[in-house]
Amino acid sequence: MAEADTTNGTQAPKKELILNAFVINAPGHLSAGSWKHPRSRTTEYKKLKFWTDLAQLLDKANFHAMFIADVLGPYDVYKGPANHGPAASSGAQYPMNDPLYTVPAMAAVTDNLIFGVTASTTYDAPYALARRFSSVDHLSDGRVAWNIVTSYLDSAARNFGLNTQVEHDERYRIAGEYMDVVYKLWEGSWCDDAVVADTKTGVYAEPDRIRQINHEGKYFNVPGPHFCEPSPQRTPFLFQAGTSKSGSDFGAKHAEAIFMGGQTPEKVRPLVDNIRQSAKEKFGRDPSHIKILVGMTIIVAETDGKAKEKEAELRSYADKDGTLALFGGWTGIDLSTYSDDEDFRFVKLPAIQSIINTWTSTVPGSEGLPWTKARIADYLALGGMTAKVVGSPKTVVDELERWVEISGVDGFNLTHVVNPGSFEDIIDFVLPELQRRGLFRTKVRKEGATAREVFLGSPHLLPDHPGSQFKWKD
Amino acid sequence: MAEADTTNGTQAPKKELILNAFVINAPGHLSAGSWKHPRSRTTEYKKLKFWTDLAQLLDKANFHAMFIADVLGPYDVYKGPANHGPAASSGAQYPMNDPLYTVPAMAAVTDNLIFGVTASTTYDAPYALARRFSSVDHLSDGRVAWNIVTSYLDSAARNFGLNTQVEHDERYRIAGEYMDVVYKLWEGSWCDDAVVADTKTGVYAEPDRIRQINHEGKYFNVPGPHFCEPSPQRTPFLFQAGTSKSGSDFGAKHAEAIFMGGQTPEKVRPLVDNIRQSAKEKFGRDPSHIKILVGMTIIVAETDGKAKEKEAELRSYADKDGTLALFGGWTGIDLSTYSDDEDFRFVKLPAIQSIINTWTSTVPGSEGLPWTKARIADYLALGGMTAKVVGSPKTVVDELERWVEISGVDGFNLTHVVNPGSFEDIIDFVLPELQRRGLFRTKVRKEGATAREVFLGSPHLLPDHPGSQFKWKD
Repeated sequence: MAEADTTNGTQAPKKELILNAFVINAPGHLSAGSWKHPRSRTTEYKKLKFWTDLAQLLDKANFHAMFIADVLGPYDVYKGPANHGPAASSGAQYPMNDPLYTVPAMAAVTDNLIFGVTASTTYDAPYALARRFSSVDHLSDGRVAWNIVTSYLDSAARNFGLNTQVEHDERYRIAGEYMDVVYKLWEGSWCDDAVVADTKTGVYAEPDRIRQINHEGKYFNVPGPHFCEPSPQRTPFLFQAGTSKSGSDFGAKHAEAIFMGGQTPEKVRPLVDNIRQSAKEKFGRDPSHIKILVGMTIIVAETDGKAKEKEAELRSYADKDGTLALFGGWTGIDLSTYSDDEDFRFVKLPAIQSIINTWTSTVPGSEGLPWTKARIADYLALGGMTAKVVGSPKTVVDELERWVEISGVDGFNLTHVVNPGSFEDIIDFVLPELQRRGLFRTKVRKEGATAREVFLGSPHLLPDHPGSQFKWKD
Repeated sequence: MAEADTTNGTQAPKKELILNAFVINAPGHLSAGSWKHPRSRTTEYKKLKFWTDLAQLLDKANFHAMFIADVLGPYDVYKGPANHGPAASSGAQYPMNDPLYTVPAMAAVTDNLIFGVTASTTYDAPYALARRFSSVDHLSDGRVAWNIVTSYLDSAARNFGLNTQVEHDERYRIAGEYMDVVYKLWEGSWCDDAVVADTKTGVYAEPDRIRQINHEGKYFNVPGPHFCEPSPQRTPFLFQAGTSKSGSDFGAKHAEAIFMGGQTPEKVRPLVDNIRQSAKEKFGRDPSHIKILVGMTIIVAETDGKAKEKEAELRSYADKDGTLALFGGWTGIDLSTYSDDEDFRFVKLPAIQSIINTWTSTVPGSEGLPWTKARIADYLALGGMTAKVVGSPKTVVDELERWVEISGVDGFNLTHVVNPGSFEDIIDFVLPELQRRGLFRTKVRKEGATAREVFLGSPHLLPDHPGSQFKWKD
């Protein structure tokens, strides 16, 4: 923890954190059952006003971005296979609408908020996806980001006509070529000065400033040119969330911001170092050009005691089967096949052993206690597998500072238990304390900046980003 | 013309017409070059405000719908193959953004306007398309319609990785199975009472009121269930625009509104009769359950003389190469391979012979004149291949009445030469005259009605629609 100590002085100027709100276009996200709570409006997820209200709340509070998760099928491992029951009954990430259609209207009623939207490289043709994001980048004046995923649910694969999903490493090989195609479309097929819209000469776009990309690869043949003229960012700002080996290399190469999970800052530190080191050594990128965010669930109130009470009250809304359905989707483990008194400390599943060990180390006094199914569900009930902090503003912000100092992350993807309630609490209790300590912006640096300008200071891909090699050259 | 005479009395109550505004998400639509005109704002097509302003203009004037065309590649036949130059230079349907992302924001700022959006069955998986339209149907409170196309441009096919596009009849066979899949998802996989969102029992959706569709066909395998809960319309209101034999049968089976082209009402009449007859005899549908609209370009001013002057002024902005690029895309004929003095009356291309014959019959005094390339471009310059009427409000409305009486259509897809200028003229000059004659609504019947309620009186598919067979049955 030597790193932490060297930056622990409160006198030194501190780096402002990046704060995103982590949400999903469904009744429930990471805290199954919480849609029932009076401070949740998520049953209105289908209505545009739910989204524009949330966007305005976050924008006014200077949040950097709303990060919208997405999957393409239900979590149907638990009590499965292919059983949508527990997810449907609890509303746990099911049903779920397409998130990208909410963005233009949210951008129209906000000044600065960025919208990070998940979309998969596995099920959408690169030519079509490039057009979708260019269209929304235009409509949002450059405030959209793409969270690149390769999709991990069998339930999605089956509905796209595959008997089983594409194998994990192959998915990333396909995704790698996919990125080449979209970079060529976004960066290389229209020159900056292609569109002149000159009413004198009558020329809308100069044909010789637009060219085909003629991509012929192993997985894709796309002649181009891109069907859209250059949008404010061209390539949308790129998020990525993979933490596997292939996923991590993919992120080190392509991502401009990475979203990580992790229970302790000590465990996250090597992941952060690994990403930054890979970015530099394998891909020649400046490691500071990747912003790293960690998921964090905050339950905050005036005092530590009141926060504990709030936690207990929130927990009373949790849905056990919904929680275990989410766990099944994330891990592939169907806990319904075990008895209620099974102690998972002694179940020989490497995935669950590793998780149990981590949990035990993060819950004081939990050593020696059995990890039954009920206890697992209870542990995951509020915020799922993200790290959590419960307490007063001081307790919470101390913990966020400790996280940053030890793990080296640039900020947080803040989850909600109740939406918008959890964000209202963060705005009322946490942001003022962060701002008092110089850890969060009190005003935006440039009104209406594009996503990439906010995070990296430039509207377009930086020269060390691999997409830059595809930029138009005369 | 006996049909016309029987309904020509001004005393008899008349059927109110359906009026849609026909637009596209690009600098130019059917009148290449008109983006340069002072009354055109189409170079702002990339901005949300252009769309919300247009939607409010049309909504306030009681237009039924905004119908947004879409293609997936440039018109690159003329001077081709694969030459995007003439389309790019003139901005003729190129570049073009994805239209569906504009709809939620437009719905939010309007009360009643319906949004008909084109999307192809050839390049989007049915599971994904079903989710896209359900999401937008939710966000627009049921005011979205889907214009089903199977895509006809080689330039699109190539960019989706196909060496040539799927053969025409095969495209419609695929589209037929595609429709079965989306009907099963939209109509059959969630019961009306599946979503209870009961805070007492904690049940969001009843699992046994959601079921898999288990579609296994020649082209698609989709187990379902649909990933979205039922939206206001479930199946979005269905538009279709094909006029080929396969396209016409497809429309007679699936469409709830059909958009037709045609130069004269006499030539459109048998197409209308054929659709209605096919709907009844082949598919057992009530012919009145298909609303038929014909494309119409209106140039209107205070007097016939002023309208002619306006036409000439608008024509001075036309872009000849852009017009011929559009013609190349529509017909597959590259007129650049012919000399400037070629008389196309004597060129043995069946497609062009038929078109020339029709044109000659619709332009008084044109018999015996040569149809050169320049004259073709001039003829198509304003509104492309749609029928046109130029004149005073009385002249225009007389012609619209004549069209309805002879052809039997239910209304018009009104094109623009300049956008919003052409719609402003229609609102100022044509709608009052139509309303005076009882031919256009002065107020909407039900505030905030869904698209299908406006056109057919029901939010959901009518019992005689083939999608109804897939409705949930206990």
